[in-house]
Amino acid sequence: MASEFEIIRRYFNNHSRSVRLGVGDDGALIDLGGGKDLVLTTDTLVSGTHFLSSEDPTAIGFKSAAVNLSDLAAMGATPKYALLAITLPFSDEAWLERFSKGLYSVLNQYSVNLVGGDTTRGDVLSITLTAIGFVSSNKALRRDHATFDDDVWVSGLIGVGAVGLLIQRGTLRFSKRDEEDFLARLRKPEPRVELGQKLVGIANSAIDISDGLVADAGHVAKGSGTQIVIDFATIPTHTALNSSKRDPIIKNSILGGGDDYELLFTANPDAKEQIDSIARDLDLRLTRIGKVRSGSGVAVRDDGEELSVGFQRGFDHFAKRK
Amino acid sequence: MASEFEIIRRYFNNHSRSVRLGVGDDGALIDLGGGKDLVLTTDTLVSGTHFLSSEDPTAIGFKSAAVNLSDLAAMGATPKYALLAITLPFSDEAWLERFSKGLYSVLNQYSVNLVGGDTTRGDVLSITLTAIGFVSSNKALRRDHATFDDDVWVSGLIGVGAVGLLIQRGTLRFSKRDEEDFLARLRKPEPRVELGQKLVGIANSAIDISDGLVADAGHVAKGSGTQIVIDFATIPTHTALNSSKRDPIIKNSILGGGDDYELLFTANPDAKEQIDSIARDLDLRLTRIGKVRSGSGVAVRDDGEELSVGFQRGFDHFAKRK
Repeated sequence: MASEFEIIRRYFNNHSRSVRLGVGDDGALIDLGGGKDLVLTTDTLVSGTHFLSSEDPTAIGFKSAAVNLSDLAAMGATPKYALLAITLPFSDEAWLERFSKGLYSVLNQYSVNLVGGDTTRGDVLSITLTAIGFVSSNKALRRDHATFDDDVWVSGLIGVGAVGLLIQRGTLRFSKRDEEDFLARLRKPEPRVELGQKLVGIANSAIDISDGLVADAGHVAKGSGTQIVIDFATIPTHTALNSSKRDPIIKNSILGGGDDYELLFTANPDAKEQIDSIARDLDLRLTRIGKVRSGSGVAVRDDGEELSVGFQRGFDHFAKRK
Repeated sequence: MASEFEIIRRYFNNHSRSVRLGVGDDGALIDLGGGKDLVLTTDTLVSGTHFLSSEDPTAIGFKSAAVNLSDLAAMGATPKYALLAITLPFSDEAWLERFSKGLYSVLNQYSVNLVGGDTTRGDVLSITLTAIGFVSSNKALRRDHATFDDDVWVSGLIGVGAVGLLIQRGTLRFSKRDEEDFLARLRKPEPRVELGQKLVGIANSAIDISDGLVADAGHVAKGSGTQIVIDFATIPTHTALNSSKRDPIIKNSILGGGDDYELLFTANPDAKEQIDSIARDLDLRLTRIGKVRSGSGVAVRDDGEELSVGFQRGFDHFAKRK
C-alpha cells in the first residue's frame, strides 16, 4: 500500500536538513549530531490482516517486536527503545500476559527498553510498535545504494515463512517434524540484528525480506537505479523443499512469499571473505544468490532461462499466484 | 486503561540508565548525552472510540497530530519528528487528501517533519502517531514533581471540548455562534507547544488535560505524593457557560470532561509574575485555579464546601455522570 503513503506524502514537503532519509526506506534516519544518527521505524500488525484473532498471543507479541527490529537490522542500527500502542477489543489479563511474554522475549534478547505506549479500547485488535535505534553518522545501510557489479546476498533460508503459512492453512503437508519446524520459523522470525550491525561498512545496500524476495530485491533495484539478477538454483531454502524447489507453489513461496524477515544485501565481490567470516561468527548461513547489473527491475535466472520481472507487474505476478 | 499497560509492564523490568522516565508520564524521556534528552510519545485514535467514521477526515488528521504534540507540550519538549501508522478499511484518495491536510496543518505549524510510517489494510480505521521531540537534559516538565504550596494553573478554557461533544450529540443547545465556537474547539484542539517550552525552568510539574481536569490533576497528585485542591469558581470556561457553570451537566463537563488539551501545571507562588508575562507574550489565558498541599487525591472547593475525590472513585464518579 505504498501508493497510499504516497498520497499522504504529497501534502508534506517540509523536510529539515537533519532528516537524512524520510519515508521510503525501512526506517527514517535523523542526524543527531555528535557522530550519531537516530533510526526510527513503525509497523502495525492488525487482526484479520497479519494474524488471526485465535492466534497464540505469545506469537503475536513475538512477531510485533521482530518485524520492527528487522527494519532496524536492515539499516544496520542498534535497537535501543520501543513504544507500544495497542488497541484491545477485550480486557483479558491472561491474553496480555502471554502477549507480553512474546514481546519481551524479543525485546530483552536485544536489550531494547519499552519506554512508553498507549492502550486503547477498539473493535479490532491492533498493535503498532515503534522502534528506535542508533547508527554511526552516515553509516546506515540503505536500500538505495546498491552498486554495479555488487554480489547479492541473503541470510538464512528463503520461502520458509510462506510455506509455513501454507502448512498452517492445510494446503501443504510435510513430515510432522518438518511441519513443526516451518511453523516455528513462521511464528517466531528472528530479526537479523547482529548481522545488520556487522554489515555496516561492508554492504553497499540492505533490506529485510518482508514483502517477498523478488519484491524486496525490486525495492533495492528501484531505489538504486540498477537491475538485480537472481540465480534461482542458488537460493537457500529448507532441506524439506530441496526435491520440490521447482514445483510452482514452492517456487512462488521462495520468490514471492514474505514473512522470512531475513536480510537481502549487496556488497562488492571483494567483500566475500569478510562476509564469510561474519557467517562463521554468527553461525548464520549467508549465501550469494545474484548480481547487481545495469538495467531496472529484477530478473530471475533458472534452467538456462531468464524471467525479467518489471516492478508493478512483478509484484502482482507473484502475489496473484500465492 | 492504564491497568492494562500495568499488566504489560509487569513482564518488563529492563530499564537502562539512559531511560530517565519510562511508561507513565505523557512521554518517555531518554538521555542522549550532549545536554539533550529525547522525548517520545505515541497515541492511537480509533474509529468508534475516538471519532465516528463519518467525521470530517481533516478533523481526524488535525486531532491525530494535536493530541501527540499536546503530550510533548506537557513535557516542555520541542517537537521535531513524527511517524504515522495508519490502518485503512478502504482506499479513498479524497479521504486521504483531506486527512493529510488536517495532519499537516498542525505538523507544519510546529515545523514537525513526518519522517516515516506504515499503511496497513484492516477492518477498522485506526491512526497511531508517534511524535519525537527534544528538551534540555533533566529539564523536562513531569507530572511527578509538584511541590508543596505550588499554585495550580491551567491554560485556556476548561470543559469546552466536553460541552462541544454534548452539542455534537444534540444533548445541549446554545446560540448558533456559540455552538460553532464549541465545535471548532472540539475538532481542532490547539496543542500548547510554545507554552510548554516557556514553562521549562518555571513550572514544577505539568500534564495535558486529556482525561479530564480532576483525573489529570489526580495523576499529578498521585505522581507527586501530594494533594491538589481546586477552587471551582476560579476555573476559566467559555463565556456561554458563565450563567450555567453549576448546572450538574456543565459542572461535570468542566471537572470530568477531557478533550481540551490545555495544560495543567504547578509552580511556586513566586513564579506568578513570570507566568503572567508568558500569558501576555502568547496571548493565552493562564489562570490559577488551586494549590498543592499535603495529602492525596484531588479536592474541589465550591460554595464553602469541599468535595474530596479519591483516585479511582474520583475518575469513575465523574465518568459515570458524563
